[in-house]
Amino acid sequence: MEEKQFVKEIADIEENFAQWYTDVVLKTGLVDYGPVKGTMVIRPYGYAIWENIQKDLDRRFKATGVQNAYFPMFIPESFLKKEAEHVEGFAPEVAVVTYAGGEKLAEPLIVRPTSETIIGYMYSKWLSSYRELPILINQWANVVRWEKTTRPFLRTSEFLWQEGHTVHATAEEAMEETLLMLKVYKDFAEETLAIPVITGRKTEKEKFAGGLATYGMEAMMLDGKSLQAGTSHYFGQNFTKAFDIKFLDKDGALKYGYSTSWGVSTRLIGAIIMAHGDNRGLVLPPEVAPVQAIIIPIAAHKGGVTEKAKEIESALCAAGLRAETDVRDMSPGRKFNEWELKGVPVRIEVGPRDIEAGQVTVMRRDTLEKFTVPFTELTARICALLKEIQKEMLALSRARRDKKIVHADTLEGILGGVEGKNFVKAGWCGDRACEDRVKEYAAATARVMCDEEGIPERCAVCGKPAKHNVIFARAY
Amino acid sequence: MEEKQFVKEIADIEENFAQWYTDVVLKTGLVDYGPVKGTMVIRPYGYAIWENIQKDLDRRFKATGVQNAYFPMFIPESFLKKEAEHVEGFAPEVAVVTYAGGEKLAEPLIVRPTSETIIGYMYSKWLSSYRELPILINQWANVVRWEKTTRPFLRTSEFLWQEGHTVHATAEEAMEETLLMLKVYKDFAEETLAIPVITGRKTEKEKFAGGLATYGMEAMMLDGKSLQAGTSHYFGQNFTKAFDIKFLDKDGALKYGYSTSWGVSTRLIGAIIMAHGDNRGLVLPPEVAPVQAIIIPIAAHKGGVTEKAKEIESALCAAGLRAETDVRDMSPGRKFNEWELKGVPVRIEVGPRDIEAGQVTVMRRDTLEKFTVPFTELTARICALLKEIQKEMLALSRARRDKKIVHADTLEGILGGVEGKNFVKAGWCGDRACEDRVKEYAAATARVMCDEEGIPERCAVCGKPAKHNVIFARAY
Repeated sequence: MEEKQFVKEIADIEENFAQWYTDVVLKTGLVDYGPVKGTMVIRPYGYAIWENIQKDLDRRFKATGVQNAYFPMFIPESFLKKEAEHVEGFAPEVAVVTYAGGEKLAEPLIVRPTSETIIGYMYSKWLSSYRELPILINQWANVVRWEKTTRPFLRTSEFLWQEGHTVHATAEEAMEETLLMLKVYKDFAEETLAIPVITGRKTEKEKFAGGLATYGMEAMMLDGKSLQAGTSHYFGQNFTKAFDIKFLDKDGALKYGYSTSWGVSTRLIGAIIMAHGDNRGLVLPPEVAPVQAIIIPIAAHKGGVTEKAKEIESALCAAGLRAETDVRDMSPGRKFNEWELKGVPVRIEVGPRDIEAGQVTVMRRDTLEKFTVPFTELTARICALLKEIQKEMLALSRARRDKKIVHADTLEGILGGVEGKNFVKAGWCGDRACEDRVKEYAAATARVMCDEEGIPERCAVCGKPAKHNVIFARAY
Repeated sequence: MEEKQFVKEIADIEENFAQWYTDVVLKTGLVDYGPVKGTMVIRPYGYAIWENIQKDLDRRFKATGVQNAYFPMFIPESFLKKEAEHVEGFAPEVAVVTYAGGEKLAEPLIVRPTSETIIGYMYSKWLSSYRELPILINQWANVVRWEKTTRPFLRTSEFLWQEGHTVHATAEEAMEETLLMLKVYKDFAEETLAIPVITGRKTEKEKFAGGLATYGMEAMMLDGKSLQAGTSHYFGQNFTKAFDIKFLDKDGALKYGYSTSWGVSTRLIGAIIMAHGDNRGLVLPPEVAPVQAIIIPIAAHKGGVTEKAKEIESALCAAGLRAETDVRDMSPGRKFNEWELKGVPVRIEVGPRDIEAGQVTVMRRDTLEKFTVPFTELTARICALLKEIQKEMLALSRARRDKKIVHADTLEGILGGVEGKNFVKAGWCGDRACEDRVKEYAAATARVMCDEEGIPERCAVCGKPAKHNVIFARAY
């Protein structure tokens, strides 16, 4: 009965996915709305997920030789204008500081929407010789993009992200870095978030303002829409020329470097929610779950129950797991609901009868399966179970997604596909007009190109010979 | 000879401490000036120190039950005005966003100088029952205070910090938290940064704008000046009343909570530099050193040398140390200078003769002692050595500081004391006028009160009976 009451608290995931999302993010205490329109507060439960994301990604970046640094948030307005496409892309979204220290500023300052310009300025100061290349620097920071329509995690005026900025001696090395970081992101999304992603190059329309090529990774949400979960940009010499980033090469010639940038943001938390949730709420992959195992004492007032629960908690924590005991004075049923809503991967119930039988009852959040485990095997079994859940969540997501990738060779086919909540693969002639037509007719955008899978004969829009194999989808 | 050339690169620490500081922070690649006046770029070597600080402090905070979260950086201007002293203290220093998304904002937004107001607003939304108390939240963030005179790490327009914000049911619990966090900071400063600190309450003049009591920790720099290295504030109900932070207590009554806040910043990096450096540059405590042991191959072209160096590096890294081998194509002498400048605690030299003798040459950066260690004992000895250096750096700093704490019972005595680069303990009647007089006459400020050590009979300024035992010093 309690479960039923509980289910009413969040909208039905099939009936109203958008409301389900809003209910889940607010009621689990992941996030709240800030006082300024379009801003969010990342509450402790949400921030703990971000900390796990940061820790894992940071390790992956550093393994490729990247170091962290921190650049100022305020960018002189003139910097933004040095790269023509860049200013066009970002100027409409920026927040501008015009007063500081009680005085009007001589030059307004832009709050960084991204840091290519200010980092480019510093690289130009620092770089002199080929010996200092490559420059491989990342920063974890807040950025601001003033958006009209916002949703927690998915699109907010201020968000947290990381932005890597690298400079290389040759175009080849810069392109290698671009693709290496795309691979790092893909491995991270799949191994750590249990979200299968499709990576590929973006069309000219969808690429980063000021770049030569953008590569993105796209994840399918439970409603069939795509979420751009990360991007890696190849800039060629666009920014190195705009910011005069030069080096003396081995051959004695002064040359411009080639640069890249790549980033993921707190948007990933939105992706986790919408890739794995269900009608009971969140389902968190063990790798990023703030609590991996919640221990719930049953009839906690009976002698030895809470002690046993705490003993299990200690054993699990000692094995490196994030385990907690819920000792609050409320019914186990309410606790079950709350921790299911919060998506904790494993629940461990321990009561007087369990203690007598030398076992506990375990529930997996992803499959809702329940089974008993003897005390003597508990720690080893929970460790193994978390690994298994992590693997199976990815496999399930992948199977679910793969069934929803369809092919189309007409505009109607694309519309039908996306209305059926699919990703639609279709041939494209490469003309912007045909890409715009898909947007207009099917409210879908070109997510990435996957030409390496083979190119269809004709453009699904105009019928001319196709140059690319594009995934079209509706997107967040 | 090379060492002499090298020493010229940075100003003499005795002759010109300020220039020595600037030379060291710039030439070690800790920091650079940003394009906007008063801003700094924290370069990878500096940021790695900050990462080590964060990791250690974050662990200490969490051990007391604190969780991290993230609040928006933009604060509606009206929020600042809700606490009268608070707006007076911070309004002159704020940066203001007046345009965003291409439009003039109806209400200007303040870029946070500190987050009591916006966090207070959220806590008011969240808090309803005594069951939810205490609220123990910390955030790692950037803040902006527009200062006229700036120096890298010590005072910059934008800096990185952590700010903890807690709410409690009673005044006693809030005061306990204030003092607990002060203790956490003191332990951290001494154990991790090897900097002895004096903690105590600040005078009314020096306290946080809007608080009831501020406790600070003060560290003596090598020039005898004091650096405020962290503060912990007790607010009573000032902010909970201004922001309507109420809860239903056990007794059924609706009550205002009691709040605290506490913070340390990237200023701590400045403290490390100025507490431990010498004429060769930085001397980093092992706990926060980005590289704890640098391995330098001698005659690296000879067979087996680089291999042996790499083997040592692997063994040290496997033991959990941060070790690196410098394989660059330059003379060992230049490498010695560079790593001494960078303050790496231990240098390990390995050359053909060492290999033959089955040993390496080790140098301690703090004492400059050199000795040989057999290969077979190396890892264990380096681990032990780093612990020893950490401990001895604190002991040395403490002994040096303790010799420079003097007593004075006249205004002239205070002047003489601070001109002799000391901390001066003196009686104070508690009147602002006397405190101002010390500032005017001796260019020194009241750092903290240490009344628990006993209160002198008379105020050193006016001769009336003293109420406090104050440490006066010149300060950063």
